[in-house]
Amino acid sequence: MQDPFVNLRVPGPTPVPDQVARAAARPMVNHRGPEFAAAMTEVVEGLKPFFGTRDDPLLLTGSGTGAMEAAIVNVLSPGDEVLAVTIGVFGDRFADIAQAFGATVHRLQAEWGKAIEPDAVAQALKEHRNIKAVLLTHNETSTGVTNDLAAIAAVVRTGGGDAPLLLADGVSSIGALPFEMDVWNIDVAITGSQKSWMSPPGVGMIALSERAWKAYAEARMPRFYWDFGKARKNGTRGTTPFTPAVGVVHALQEALRLMHAEGQEAVFARHRHIGVSIRKGIKSLGLELFADPAVVSNTVTAVRIPARVDASAFLRDLRQRHHLVVGSGQDWLKGSIFRIGHMGWIHDSDVDHLLSALRSALQTARLEEAV
Amino acid sequence: MQDPFVNLRVPGPTPVPDQVARAAARPMVNHRGPEFAAAMTEVVEGLKPFFGTRDDPLLLTGSGTGAMEAAIVNVLSPGDEVLAVTIGVFGDRFADIAQAFGATVHRLQAEWGKAIEPDAVAQALKEHRNIKAVLLTHNETSTGVTNDLAAIAAVVRTGGGDAPLLLADGVSSIGALPFEMDVWNIDVAITGSQKSWMSPPGVGMIALSERAWKAYAEARMPRFYWDFGKARKNGTRGTTPFTPAVGVVHALQEALRLMHAEGQEAVFARHRHIGVSIRKGIKSLGLELFADPAVVSNTVTAVRIPARVDASAFLRDLRQRHHLVVGSGQDWLKGSIFRIGHMGWIHDSDVDHLLSALRSALQTARLEEAV
Repeated sequence: MQDPFVNLRVPGPTPVPDQVARAAARPMVNHRGPEFAAAMTEVVEGLKPFFGTRDDPLLLTGSGTGAMEAAIVNVLSPGDEVLAVTIGVFGDRFADIAQAFGATVHRLQAEWGKAIEPDAVAQALKEHRNIKAVLLTHNETSTGVTNDLAAIAAVVRTGGGDAPLLLADGVSSIGALPFEMDVWNIDVAITGSQKSWMSPPGVGMIALSERAWKAYAEARMPRFYWDFGKARKNGTRGTTPFTPAVGVVHALQEALRLMHAEGQEAVFARHRHIGVSIRKGIKSLGLELFADPAVVSNTVTAVRIPARVDASAFLRDLRQRHHLVVGSGQDWLKGSIFRIGHMGWIHDSDVDHLLSALRSALQTARLEEAV
Repeated sequence: MQDPFVNLRVPGPTPVPDQVARAAARPMVNHRGPEFAAAMTEVVEGLKPFFGTRDDPLLLTGSGTGAMEAAIVNVLSPGDEVLAVTIGVFGDRFADIAQAFGATVHRLQAEWGKAIEPDAVAQALKEHRNIKAVLLTHNETSTGVTNDLAAIAAVVRTGGGDAPLLLADGVSSIGALPFEMDVWNIDVAITGSQKSWMSPPGVGMIALSERAWKAYAEARMPRFYWDFGKARKNGTRGTTPFTPAVGVVHALQEALRLMHAEGQEAVFARHRHIGVSIRKGIKSLGLELFADPAVVSNTVTAVRIPARVDASAFLRDLRQRHHLVVGSGQDWLKGSIFRIGHMGWIHDSDVDHLLSALRSALQTARLEEAV
């Protein structure tokens, strides 16, 4: 069933290096004991430079979407107005969560494949004067677009201390792309273990600004499991309020050691280099990128499937004959694009395999087309 | 840091057998692909006999407490009256979650260390005629007590089709103790991967009755991440709405193979036998059980710490000199009891080690007392 040679290139979960997988399989420990506290403390410290924050990130047991829900319910109250900036599936999801919990959601949408213009955010904030929080996707995994978070954050923060909070979904960016939470004035930043962190899914990581903690104190959306206050209080003792995904925390500990051994700037440079290589390779195969070239992502590339190529047959051929697993299109893009995840554990040899598999599967698809 | 000889006897996370740990470390797969679908389908099928249900249990990414929150928000609306039967920390927690989401909570408490009398539940249901749901802990991990779930369920269901829903926290019971969801008329049953299932923490498993699905359709508590409808819809395709803890699902797949190879009745018999052995051993050491002997649990044993023995020194000695890790008391029981978890991967030799470690640490404690 399991293909040991697979080149897993969905935009998460990402491949897990051997030593990280072995860490996930280490003997179980008491999550209230000193071994777990040491691992958790190392993870929290290791995350900070990648978030660009001095505050301790919180570890939550759940998917990235769980961490997004946690961000919403901890800083907002029912009836609060939020500006949800959405450029794809995950922006829509962030907005939907806020709406499900009773926020009044104003949606600012960009055409899929494009980034949001900072000016459009400024304009929307002028139209809606009571915005409590702006929801923004840093890197939109469904379209392969990276928003200019620093520029948008500057726009949001124009109002100074009374400015709206900025909640940034960094699920597929933090750990691979430069992220400067404190410098840019991000109030809540979210990521997940199964993306840039080369670890299995199961842990969401989230960091808060002082302003976010003040908002937490007043927020009245119902919460229990996701409560940040409980997580912070337990975090100071090196534990979590509820049983954490211990194996994933052990994996993160090992993965962060690898990342810091490589060096943060080297990790970012590798992602830039790999992103460039993949886009160049895709074009050399005669394929088209889905995203606006000016705002392409260095962690996810969305590629248009040529007309008359059957998407599901093409993806199946890639998987079965070429040991390459890529992501399909989401929502209305299903069947018209495929998505390559290139965050975390990826090097030139993986790109070589990726491109040669794509070349061969494309030839097959075109031969079948010709028949 | 890590002690490879440790006998981990907290009431979760429980020890993970080697082949299960190796399964957790298997190469990562696409959670939208056929390999994951096969694993998830096998897990769902393997869980059903242990839940005693024909319906497919849902897999949620989170701690047991997350699954408890999911149970509440999927079948209740703000203002609904619930009867929270609580005999310890986890009963209180179930009640607190319902309250946090706006239910009107009536608490029926038994003295800690005792079970709830079915008659007391009947009486409470007579006093409160508009109860929408009864919340009940099957096995209370904080006190080592098992409630008579079948008898209480019969009382709750006396009203027939209009009877309140029964939401059972089976986190530390299902998979180790007999549990007959369909026969007993349980409406929502919850458990977690890190308890009887010998797997790492990170996945909650939850099953619903038809009546619970009807309540789901009308329930208005806010929900997004925990939405059961999304989980069911994705479940029919062998996937989850949001990225699951893939490694934990792989672990569960392997653990369930071990459990079914042993046989469900043999698993239950082993837990009864181990429970008896531990209680007998504890008494032979001159120690007292915390729980009423009539309602002791076969998955968790709470033991009184003798007067004048320093609890934290005693637990530290157990851990550091004897490689035995047990749980401390929770809430007001901190310092006055310790708790032994004996669910999942436990055999006679573990009990022998447990008892000899306790004997030796007790001698040390008593010598120090004598000084």
